[in-house]
Amino acid sequence: MGNSFGKLFRITTFGESHGAAIGVIIDGCPAGLEIDETFIQSELDRRKPGQSKITTQRKEDDTFKILSGVFEGKSTGAPIALMIENQDQRSKDYSHIAERFRPSHADYTYEAKYGNRDYRGGGRSSARETAARVAAGALAKMLLKKSGIEVQAFVSQVGNIKAPNYKTLDLTKKEDNIVRCPDSVTAEKMIALIDEVRLQRDTIGGVVTGVIKNSPVGLGEPVFEKLHAALGHAMLGINAVKGFEYGSGFDGVKLRGSQHNDEFYNEGEKIRTRTNYSGGVQGGISNGEDIYFNVAFKPVATIMQDQQSVDKAGNEVTVSGKGRHDPCVVPRAVPIVEAMAALVMVDFLLVGKTSKL
Amino acid sequence: MGNSFGKLFRITTFGESHGAAIGVIIDGCPAGLEIDETFIQSELDRRKPGQSKITTQRKEDDTFKILSGVFEGKSTGAPIALMIENQDQRSKDYSHIAERFRPSHADYTYEAKYGNRDYRGGGRSSARETAARVAAGALAKMLLKKSGIEVQAFVSQVGNIKAPNYKTLDLTKKEDNIVRCPDSVTAEKMIALIDEVRLQRDTIGGVVTGVIKNSPVGLGEPVFEKLHAALGHAMLGINAVKGFEYGSGFDGVKLRGSQHNDEFYNEGEKIRTRTNYSGGVQGGISNGEDIYFNVAFKPVATIMQDQQSVDKAGNEVTVSGKGRHDPCVVPRAVPIVEAMAALVMVDFLLVGKTSKL
Amino acid sequence: MGNSFGKLFRITTFGESHGAAIGVIIDGCPAGLEIDETFIQSELDRRKPGQSKITTQRKEDDTFKILSGVFEGKSTGAPIALMIENQDQRSKDYSHIAERFRPSHADYTYEAKYGNRDYRGGGRSSARETAARVAAGALAKMLLKKSGIEVQAFVSQVGNIKAPNYKTLDLTKKEDNIVRCPDSVTAEKMIALIDEVRLQRDTIGGVVTGVIKNSPVGLGEPVFEKLHAALGHAMLGINAVKGFEYGSGFDGVKLRGSQHNDEFYNEGEKIRTRTNYSGGVQGGISNGEDIYFNVAFKPVATIMQDQQSVDKAGNEVTVSGKGRHDPCVVPRAVPIVEAMAALVMVDFLLVGKTSKL
Amino acid sequence: MGNSFGKLFRITTFGESHGAAIGVIIDGCPAGLEIDETFIQSELDRRKPGQSKITTQRKEDDTFKILSGVFEGKSTGAPIALMIENQDQRSKDYSHIAERFRPSHADYTYEAKYGNRDYRGGGRSSARETAARVAAGALAKMLLKKSGIEVQAFVSQVGNIKAPNYKTLDLTKKEDNIVRCPDSVTAEKMIALIDEVRLQRDTIGGVVTGVIKNSPVGLGEPVFEKLHAALGHAMLGINAVKGFEYGSGFDGVKLRGSQHNDEFYNEGEKIRTRTNYSGGVQGGISNGEDIYFNVAFKPVATIMQDQQSVDKAGNEVTVSGKGRHDPCVVPRAVPIVEAMAALVMVDFLLVGKTSKL
Repeated sequence: MGNSFGKLFRITTFGESHGAAIGVIIDGCPAGLEIDETFIQSELDRRKPGQSKITTQRKEDDTFKILSGVFEGKSTGAPIALMIENQDQRSKDYSHIAERFRPSHADYTYEAKYGNRDYRGGGRSSARETAARVAAGALAKMLLKKSGIEVQAFVSQVGNIKAPNYKTLDLTKKEDNIVRCPDSVTAEKMIALIDEVRLQRDTIGGVVTGVIKNSPVGLGEPVFEKLHAALGHAMLGINAVKGFEYGSGFDGVKLRGSQHNDEFYNEGEKIRTRTNYSGGVQGGISNGEDIYFNVAFKPVATIMQDQQSVDKAGNEVTVSGKGRHDPCVVPRAVPIVEAMAALVMVDFLLVGKTSKL
Repeated sequence: MGNSFGKLFRITTFGESHGAAIGVIIDGCPAGLEIDETFIQSELDRRKPGQSKITTQRKEDDTFKILSGVFEGKSTGAPIALMIENQDQRSKDYSHIAERFRPSHADYTYEAKYGNRDYRGGGRSSARETAARVAAGALAKMLLKKSGIEVQAFVSQVGNIKAPNYKTLDLTKKEDNIVRCPDSVTAEKMIALIDEVRLQRDTIGGVVTGVIKNSPVGLGEPVFEKLHAALGHAMLGINAVKGFEYGSGFDGVKLRGSQHNDEFYNEGEKIRTRTNYSGGVQGGISNGEDIYFNVAFKPVATIMQDQQSVDKAGNEVTVSGKGRHDPCVVPRAVPIVEAMAALVMVDFLLVGKTSKL
Repeated sequence: MGNSFGKLFRITTFGESHGAAIGVIIDGCPAGLEIDETFIQSELDRRKPGQSKITTQRKEDDTFKILSGVFEGKSTGAPIALMIENQDQRSKDYSHIAERFRPSHADYTYEAKYGNRDYRGGGRSSARETAARVAAGALAKMLLKKSGIEVQAFVSQVGNIKAPNYKTLDLTKKEDNIVRCPDSVTAEKMIALIDEVRLQRDTIGGVVTGVIKNSPVGLGEPVFEKLHAALGHAMLGINAVKGFEYGSGFDGVKLRGSQHNDEFYNEGEKIRTRTNYSGGVQGGISNGEDIYFNVAFKPVATIMQDQQSVDKAGNEVTVSGKGRHDPCVVPRAVPIVEAMAALVMVDFLLVGKTSKL
Repeated sequence: MGNSFGKLFRITTFGESHGAAIGVIIDGCPAGLEIDETFIQSELDRRKPGQSKITTQRKEDDTFKILSGVFEGKSTGAPIALMIENQDQRSKDYSHIAERFRPSHADYTYEAKYGNRDYRGGGRSSARETAARVAAGALAKMLLKKSGIEVQAFVSQVGNIKAPNYKTLDLTKKEDNIVRCPDSVTAEKMIALIDEVRLQRDTIGGVVTGVIKNSPVGLGEPVFEKLHAALGHAMLGINAVKGFEYGSGFDGVKLRGSQHNDEFYNEGEKIRTRTNYSGGVQGGISNGEDIYFNVAFKPVATIMQDQQSVDKAGNEVTVSGKGRHDPCVVPRAVPIVEAMAALVMVDFLLVGKTSKL
């Protein structure tokens, strides 16, 4: 029941890291959308492992197949099923994790909750599941494009290294480097840090900033489905996320109301705000300004070091790092953040068609 | 459609600030719960205005009435409707806001979304709606009590003034002072700051920290309904909230995996973690450790100063502060944070009954 | 959790027969709808008890109050709460049903399911709850009117007495007599039968036929939310309903495909069918023809006779009929059927706005 | 959005008749269920075409593959995806239906609703989609078996030929003949009738009766999710269904309350009813007696005869019957009715775990 997201544009994902396949059903995609399969693949490629020296060296191709809902290149209104077959399902030796709980992974909690766990590569708790979200997000982006809405994300922080405010950056440059930070100077520092951490057989956290431009005024459903609450829900559902803030965020608590309030003015025929501490959302509803938010990612839990833990029988054991993993998750998290944001926006766009007579 | 929250323990709230009444229907409360009306009232009293010199001086009694679902003192399994009649529905002069959009309020976005707006006291966007949540949350707390789960919140920051880490505090002392910070030294500073800001006819933000103790292992529904994602959704739906983080939160991004990972050990028959950067949630599922989180509140938008804005016709106008408002929202937000957290926990407790055979 | 109905135009009802009040929250009513309170009251009056000699002689006024969501006569987009206070909450003597299970009532199943039951007047299982649906249905009808959609129902059968096919009747005449059958000759026979049954201290069943005219083409959401499946769900949720059929219904099973198929033709610019065995729905989607259906109601379970039963302790006991009850439920069920049908249609009308680009 | 069914045990189906594959995601299956793949296949085989001379002669093997959610033979709590690849995806000549609307099919309504239609073999509106439901239903049956609940269905009517009341029949014999009627004498007549109709290049309707034995007391969620309302919703969502009745059904309207009421008695420690006009459901909640219901199926719309219709341009055209189709749908509908009933029961069984403390 926790595997669906969205109300009218509703996705349901399935699949484990080392099962037969992962995938997604998209129910509620309006009919008549031209499906750009090249774009879907390019989005998946932005997320796939093995892209650069600072991501995991695992190679997975993440080739998708559309099983339903598309006819003669267009959505038909029927559910769209997309599947990515797992290429490597060999039964490797997982004995080191089958019985042992890796620190800060989901091993223990899954075991306790379900009493039964696909331990191969993390099973359902693996970030591999997010490939399905990226595929669905690609369709969401195609729909948003028709309304002129742009969803972008970039790496704004790795460890202590922070990028300048998004307003000073040219976001189109975010794909110019392997860390996906549009500021080349900061990017170099981030890359160096991640590389250093990797050589230490360690990992490090970071922040992804999302920016949604050209949102129409009026999206969001008070009181419980405020636009930013849905965005937060979406982001916090991504693996390794520890926090979400929008607009002024946590820093805003230090300000006075007289500093923080965004005064309105009339720009041509459009009502605008002079500042945007609100982050494009007021009372849970978009006001037409940029929607921007930060998503905090913890350091990847898999480290190439020995750690103390317990096994299923309760014995204290040592867990050793194995395999090929990301030293820092944020470069590959960028398309996931975009995908989830696009899914939220499309859903509210559809729901919003019924707000008034 | 945005006025319901929860899946099995599901609340739907209604009501505007100056309408006839506000209230809530709770659908899915298990039958047989003894309803402690005194407790519900005491929770409402913690939220009500006019409690102290640092909250608004408006007086509202917030007396509730149970309309259904309770018989001979116990829940029957039928929907429980609670209503709070608004005492003061006099048609005051609202001309200053009927046509003008107050900066950083929901006036403009509601007008744009709905084309029609109850402007009296903020209408549906008023924080008055949260009284209904607090009433429902009181029932959730009664249910949680039966499972030994405790939900607490306190003010951990006002402006730049921060309380020590929650683990060093005696949370039972949070009600000992009017700012609801359990550390008396910090509390005094916070109160002084709020008072200063109030005299400046300004407002200031703050942070409320929530702590959930004695959660069973296994609550949370991957992948989209992770426990912390639902908590974040709940908190971000509270008026004036700008951010949510749990466990290590935004600070965690600076750590290395080797620092951040919570190693397991066996304490008697219970699997525990030595540190708790995870904030009691791993893979979206509770692990039995304390669940703790921070909620950032912006400075209240209503200030007693003139501000520039526009009116419905697009004319640039001045909006003047009027009425009696909170200089800082966090002291009264404490019971709201607790209520929303309790609602999330009860819902997952019920849903969790079906996780395994 | 079973007390809400609808997806985008979503109602949640509350209240017991002899509690403080019954009512409904409507979430998702588009803003800007002019609320005709006189019409709502007139719909409630069509359902209320004590209307004529063939309905119960109990007198209840069913005066409603709007608590929220309406401002200056129009819906605001906020949830609309309507409440009907119960006038007669005196603690009568209910000992005869507090401990005994009335045959074919919900006494035993509620007791078994919830372990706790408001036995006064049937509590939540009383048909009194349907007044809340009628109030909500009145709003749905106002919305449908804007699209030209008409929802009507009438009594087509009482016991063995059947009215002619709806197409031969003038449905505007259904309110001309107390049994709500538009054919005056049949109506007289029905009234005589109900009166006879009443004098025998017995009850009898009947059928209500619903007809929806001017539906746009395209409403209904395959595959599980077919238009007729949602209508059936709605009707089967009304107290005392035992069956639902639409179009050719159960009689259609006897026909050959060559008889039953509705051939298409072109009427001016409109695609029509020559026959309408489909009942206006094909593949779960409206085709623009009349949507018509039958709803079977069992004889009312409360009879003025002694019956054998058991009590909570399992003792075999006699249950005697008491109070004032309807000898036949269908005349008062007509507005309920209309209300539920209107709620279904409005919901699909809103959902249908997102079917295609 | 209409492609999901169920609340806690929730299925989402996808796929078109001649697309790459059809399938289903089951979200909410409790962990720890042993998955009997042989049983799933046997259920699919009961539904597949080409079984006998009275079903379509099309051959499809309907071999399924589990893509996720099962590990070492047991459900893990993760979503279970099942896929059936379509064997025959050759682009046949569909020009006769690509532009023409077959009478009483979904061609016209899908075209109108979505503006875009996969016309190959009926696309999404094809009954082929129900194979996915049967697969999911097989899992539901495995779960019900653990609670001792049995779901059975059989053909009780074809055209005018009716089987005796289910209580007089040995339901285990329903698979002994190709029409799936447990009464061999009636079965022979039904088979003869279907064969006759087939030779006339025509089709005929029928009724499937469902019987659920050993239901616990207490399933069903008043007021809108009454057990029989959910069953009706489920059945009316099956292709070609025109009506649903349970217990006394439409015939019950002719009875007096004194005849229809089911008197209670105490059988050992169990409260029973002497008659069962209620059909095992009172007030929307199961009372422990047999739950039984009838589902009416119209004659199959595809007939091997010429019919008048219109094309997309509005021209009046002739549609000729082509291909291999069932002359009567009910024999193959039996496992579908069982599957949908099992899905309803499992869902209520899970939801029912939270009814009382």
